[in-house]
Amino acid sequence: MSIRLDGRSPDQLRPVKMRLGYPKHAEGAVLIETGDTHVLCTASVEERVPLWLRGTGQGWVTAEYGMLPRSTATRNEREASRGKLGGRTQEIQRLVGRSMRAVTDLKKLGERTIWLDCDVLQADGGTRTASVTGSFIALTLALDHLAKKLEWPELPILDYAAAVSVGVMDGVPMLDLCYEEDSKALVDMNVVMTGKGGLIEVQGTGEGGPFTEAQLHELLQLAKQGIASLLEIQKQYLGPELAAKIGGQ
Amino acid sequence: MSIRLDGRSPDQLRPVKMRLGYPKHAEGAVLIETGDTHVLCTASVEERVPLWLRGTGQGWVTAEYGMLPRSTATRNEREASRGKLGGRTQEIQRLVGRSMRAVTDLKKLGERTIWLDCDVLQADGGTRTASVTGSFIALTLALDHLAKKLEWPELPILDYAAAVSVGVMDGVPMLDLCYEEDSKALVDMNVVMTGKGGLIEVQGTGEGGPFTEAQLHELLQLAKQGIASLLEIQKQYLGPELAAKIGGQ
Amino acid sequence: MSIRLDGRSPDQLRPVKMRLGYPKHAEGAVLIETGDTHVLCTASVEERVPLWLRGTGQGWVTAEYGMLPRSTATRNEREASRGKLGGRTQEIQRLVGRSMRAVTDLKKLGERTIWLDCDVLQADGGTRTASVTGSFIALTLALDHLAKKLEWPELPILDYAAAVSVGVMDGVPMLDLCYEEDSKALVDMNVVMTGKGGLIEVQGTGEGGPFTEAQLHELLQLAKQGIASLLEIQKQYLGPELAAKIGGQ
Amino acid sequence: MSIRLDGRSPDQLRPVKMRLGYPKHAEGAVLIETGDTHVLCTASVEERVPLWLRGTGQGWVTAEYGMLPRSTATRNEREASRGKLGGRTQEIQRLVGRSMRAVTDLKKLGERTIWLDCDVLQADGGTRTASVTGSFIALTLALDHLAKKLEWPELPILDYAAAVSVGVMDGVPMLDLCYEEDSKALVDMNVVMTGKGGLIEVQGTGEGGPFTEAQLHELLQLAKQGIASLLEIQKQYLGPELAAKIGGQ
Amino acid sequence: MSIRLDGRSPDQLRPVKMRLGYPKHAEGAVLIETGDTHVLCTASVEERVPLWLRGTGQGWVTAEYGMLPRSTATRNEREASRGKLGGRTQEIQRLVGRSMRAVTDLKKLGERTIWLDCDVLQADGGTRTASVTGSFIALTLALDHLAKKLEWPELPILDYAAAVSVGVMDGVPMLDLCYEEDSKALVDMNVVMTGKGGLIEVQGTGEGGPFTEAQLHELLQLAKQGIASLLEIQKQYLGPELAAKIGGQ
Amino acid sequence: MSIRLDGRSPDQLRPVKMRLGYPKHAEGAVLIETGDTHVLCTASVEERVPLWLRGTGQGWVTAEYGMLPRSTATRNEREASRGKLGGRTQEIQRLVGRSMRAVTDLKKLGERTIWLDCDVLQADGGTRTASVTGSFIALTLALDHLAKKLEWPELPILDYAAAVSVGVMDGVPMLDLCYEEDSKALVDMNVVMTGKGGLIEVQGTGEGGPFTEAQLHELLQLAKQGIASLLEIQKQYLGPELAAKIGGQ
Repeated sequence: MSIRLDGRSPDQLRPVKMRLGYPKHAEGAVLIETGDTHVLCTASVEERVPLWLRGTGQGWVTAEYGMLPRSTATRNEREASRGKLGGRTQEIQRLVGRSMRAVTDLKKLGERTIWLDCDVLQADGGTRTASVTGSFIALTLALDHLAKKLEWPELPILDYAAAVSVGVMDGVPMLDLCYEEDSKALVDMNVVMTGKGGLIEVQGTGEGGPFTEAQLHELLQLAKQGIASLLEIQKQYLGPELAAKIGGQ
Repeated sequence: MSIRLDGRSPDQLRPVKMRLGYPKHAEGAVLIETGDTHVLCTASVEERVPLWLRGTGQGWVTAEYGMLPRSTATRNEREASRGKLGGRTQEIQRLVGRSMRAVTDLKKLGERTIWLDCDVLQADGGTRTASVTGSFIALTLALDHLAKKLEWPELPILDYAAAVSVGVMDGVPMLDLCYEEDSKALVDMNVVMTGKGGLIEVQGTGEGGPFTEAQLHELLQLAKQGIASLLEIQKQYLGPELAAKIGGQ
Repeated sequence: MSIRLDGRSPDQLRPVKMRLGYPKHAEGAVLIETGDTHVLCTASVEERVPLWLRGTGQGWVTAEYGMLPRSTATRNEREASRGKLGGRTQEIQRLVGRSMRAVTDLKKLGERTIWLDCDVLQADGGTRTASVTGSFIALTLALDHLAKKLEWPELPILDYAAAVSVGVMDGVPMLDLCYEEDSKALVDMNVVMTGKGGLIEVQGTGEGGPFTEAQLHELLQLAKQGIASLLEIQKQYLGPELAAKIGGQ
Repeated sequence: MSIRLDGRSPDQLRPVKMRLGYPKHAEGAVLIETGDTHVLCTASVEERVPLWLRGTGQGWVTAEYGMLPRSTATRNEREASRGKLGGRTQEIQRLVGRSMRAVTDLKKLGERTIWLDCDVLQADGGTRTASVTGSFIALTLALDHLAKKLEWPELPILDYAAAVSVGVMDGVPMLDLCYEEDSKALVDMNVVMTGKGGLIEVQGTGEGGPFTEAQLHELLQLAKQGIASLLEIQKQYLGPELAAKIGGQ
Repeated sequence: MSIRLDGRSPDQLRPVKMRLGYPKHAEGAVLIETGDTHVLCTASVEERVPLWLRGTGQGWVTAEYGMLPRSTATRNEREASRGKLGGRTQEIQRLVGRSMRAVTDLKKLGERTIWLDCDVLQADGGTRTASVTGSFIALTLALDHLAKKLEWPELPILDYAAAVSVGVMDGVPMLDLCYEEDSKALVDMNVVMTGKGGLIEVQGTGEGGPFTEAQLHELLQLAKQGIASLLEIQKQYLGPELAAKIGGQ
Repeated sequence: MSIRLDGRSPDQLRPVKMRLGYPKHAEGAVLIETGDTHVLCTASVEERVPLWLRGTGQGWVTAEYGMLPRSTATRNEREASRGKLGGRTQEIQRLVGRSMRAVTDLKKLGERTIWLDCDVLQADGGTRTASVTGSFIALTLALDHLAKKLEWPELPILDYAAAVSVGVMDGVPMLDLCYEEDSKALVDMNVVMTGKGGLIEVQGTGEGGPFTEAQLHELLQLAKQGIASLLEIQKQYLGPELAAKIGGQ
């Protein structure tokens, strides 16, 4: 018996679609759709690193995130107009950046920066996890582009990375919350994992009240299962040739 | 004999496609594509007006514009990260706002603000004119939404509005320049016109050197013809029922 | 056999000292020291709430965080001089705010805001968890001040809250990392818990590489034990009378 | 029969006065007065160019614009206090910069930047066109100063440049609108032209409603005539020796 | 035997000229010239006070200061472009505001704000003291304007106020330093006094090395004498009728 | 007969305490307490100078100042959150910087910058003078640290520096005003002096009404006496060995 708004079972992902290579100018790009959440992820290569890495031979991966003003039910003021980035935006940027660095071989990348830009065209919950899952695709495409150009023998990617949100609603642990579910959930957790099943990020919050270790464990299992499906979808969209180049797979 | 990069004749528009109602949350929305230039235009209704209009019974229409960092060939720094809007951005915002106000009956709108947001997903020249042409669709959809909700007998739209760029390249006046053409053109002009053929904005610039009145006249004719085609496309996408509601058509 | 820099065993907290009522002007205030990490936490009462809560009868708790320029080994540029808050600062502010809201009865608080200010005088790792542990003391003192003034029968606090960091260093899970340990740790986790043992926040990050569920579990047990000690210390400093007023204890 | 506020005929300019060499520190400077609109225009030479021009051997000309807070009927907040430039300010800065670049031989200028600063001391309409007309004088004086210092055989100026506003008020096309006229005009156009009669900028706006091609044509003729007078005034103030050095005259 | 650059004796002021009523829009305005230092001072009346004075029946006087980019020997970046006010600017704004409040009867002014804007057109030392001396004229004119409009029996001005700089150069105390003298002076002092000889501000600085009480005393006598002359000049420009209305004169 | 709030006689300082070496990371640091005013002063060494000093062989000393949000009776908004520094903050920063430069031998310092950070933990009047007195200690400790590291034969300090506030309350000149006294004082003066009795800064303000030369003289004597005591306290805390190294003592 389903209790979800859109008829999904509690452990079911929303449908995921990707349009690789869009927009056309970026070295790596994807428009990822998870249900009604649509995020444009691009990866841009810059041939230099931040000041503190110069001369180290090591590269850098960083991320920026934004929501279009009317990606949401009511219009958000544009951060460019306000003249500053909100805390939520910065938190997500940092999460995406850390996640992508965790699966990139920064030494093999060399003194280059990969800029990941995640822009939400339409939001319905889970924009930060879709940004992670999409950024991995954009990152891979950009590194493949670089590898071809520079004739690298292999891609400087250590493993896959994908993310999903989980939460507890009316006492039931649920996978991949849409916005309405998310706003009602008492516990909310975002999980980023690698292709080999390692944890990169676990961020659980109980603003509506504390949660138990048992719930944490249960949510983690749900997230693991969801991420396994997302990893499969990533592989399909990348295609066998490119998928084969990702570290250790 | 065509001299254009993409095989078009000098007086030929790029193909135009529109996806109305996307993204889903906005009262009015369209993804407009003119060739490789893709702009998301949304119209949001706010039930209040700026301070200086309060108590006048009159409404307001305003516009904001942004380019995603990787909509262009090389990555642009995000204006939200820089903490301020560039001059070009503000110039375009003002152009779109003025153009839409010129065809809106602000008194009939009543004390409401329509926010138009134009966000460039992919850029290949002509983003400001695509923003005008798309904004008109988003505005119309939002006003139709309002009219239905408030049971207005008619839409507060006075006329259609569409825009196109024209320029002189290698001495030849050309319609609807793509980015590469635009960067080579010595004269560059943006024209906004109404459905009845009135001029709303004429902005001609000869940074590469001055231009003549004869060239101005010739470019204007080219723009008129291009805008006539764009107006037809707008009508087709709006459909006969909605098109019939637009002032005086 | 100890492997820690300061001779502690892996499951040992640094010594904690608190100076309640300092600085003198705040409704609630504490200077908390955990080893060489010193944070001044104050709670200020404002007799109004943010716009979106006006008329709801409900209160708000929010937090701000800052590091003095020379709290760290090398001088940090002052965020007030740079004119904007960094991402890390905003992330910590949001964490402290959420944690304190999770144990405050916002309805009983009424239309008031409690501002928590956490300012790091000297940093040696764990400033965000010390900020949470100290903020709880400042919050309690401020609410006790309010309760006395307004003759409330009870404090609007639902439970205790304290936080600790845990991490894996050289393969060994460790409690309460100092700065040098933290910078070497491959996995880093911050945990906020209530007096009754509920989880409020679990934030685990493996930027140095992914971690396993087993490690997550082990770190959580270590954090639980550390937080139990911190809760005892909080009770001692608050004194039996005040401790008795905290929800359900 | 005159219908204008100050007794002028529709095709009559306001009286123009210039004080060259004021303020004294600038390489080129003029206080230009067109009726009650007074603008201080200075040209400053900087011995370097923006980053993107370094090594190209080419110079740059750029402009900034400001209004003193009480140049207008009611006090404007100072943009320096607000911490950002408004859209109108940036639009004018860009217009002046483009206009001056159009008549400067940037290659002959060499790797130098000319900064034009236009500051409105008293405003009564037409501040942007007075800024263009005055900037040309300041630019010429600064280039003459440079030419003398560096013993250039000729000035790197290709032609004169002057600007005027035109508009339609009560159905009558009028030259050089004062503020009160401008605020009532339905059509408003700014035109920048060269000494040889070429067009540099044509910016026509019909916010009060669309305008016709016939009106555009009529306004252009009026502007041409007004600019011809302004060019004569520029020549008189520059004096025969300097006027003779301007490209092709 | 004169040792000054411009032939003045050490105790001689530079020539002072004033153009009252310029620019024309302000309630009070003056262009003050002391030698080559030219400052435009305007006083604007706003019919409300800052938040903290609302309901007190008391008025407020505040000042803003700016230098045009090319008022100085080399171009200064525009504070509006940098997006923030420098420390020197704020220091001067505060000095002018305090000085004018010291001679205004804020209770008689009622709940109004007088905004003084001091903008330096050309700088040659002593811009802050010229701003004070000029602001007093602008303030008086604005209050006279208000008094006529509101039929007040008297002006809410308690006394005159004027300012001068003094300094020690090559061991000699000197009055009214020009820029070149100021940059060589080891001690620099700005003094603001009232018509009755009271001190409003004394700001002495010995960045080039400490100074003695004897020097302080000597400089003060020089300043007193200079201010006495400035007060006479103020009276002449205001004219006997207006001068007679100023408190207690 | 004492008329002061805390029982002090008019010429009595508040008790002064210093905790040298806190916080631990800075090259020089002190927590200075004068009554209930507590300021943390740190001195940080940076191995480079601002652009305009590069290549001159000369060093620089600069200061920054901040108040913790709840150092005062009511909470102040954090300047980092507002995104800009207030005028009072900048005025104090400049005062502290100038004062410390006046007693530093910038040539002997070499191309280094000393950053002084003064952060007010608890405020009760006189924070700027406590910042000067404390900054001198932090500066001395940092220069001693440098001197030891670089084996300099002597410290590049020319003399001691300390500061105190004086004011007139109910007609009585008073030394070292606390906040409540300061807010009632009609005349307020801050004085910075050297060990040898030279004046570095004299800033007297009569916002509540003008003051006389006689009052200025009387306040100066009071300040001299207070500073003599502060210099003694500085020497005691520095200890005989370090005190002996300060220029000419």
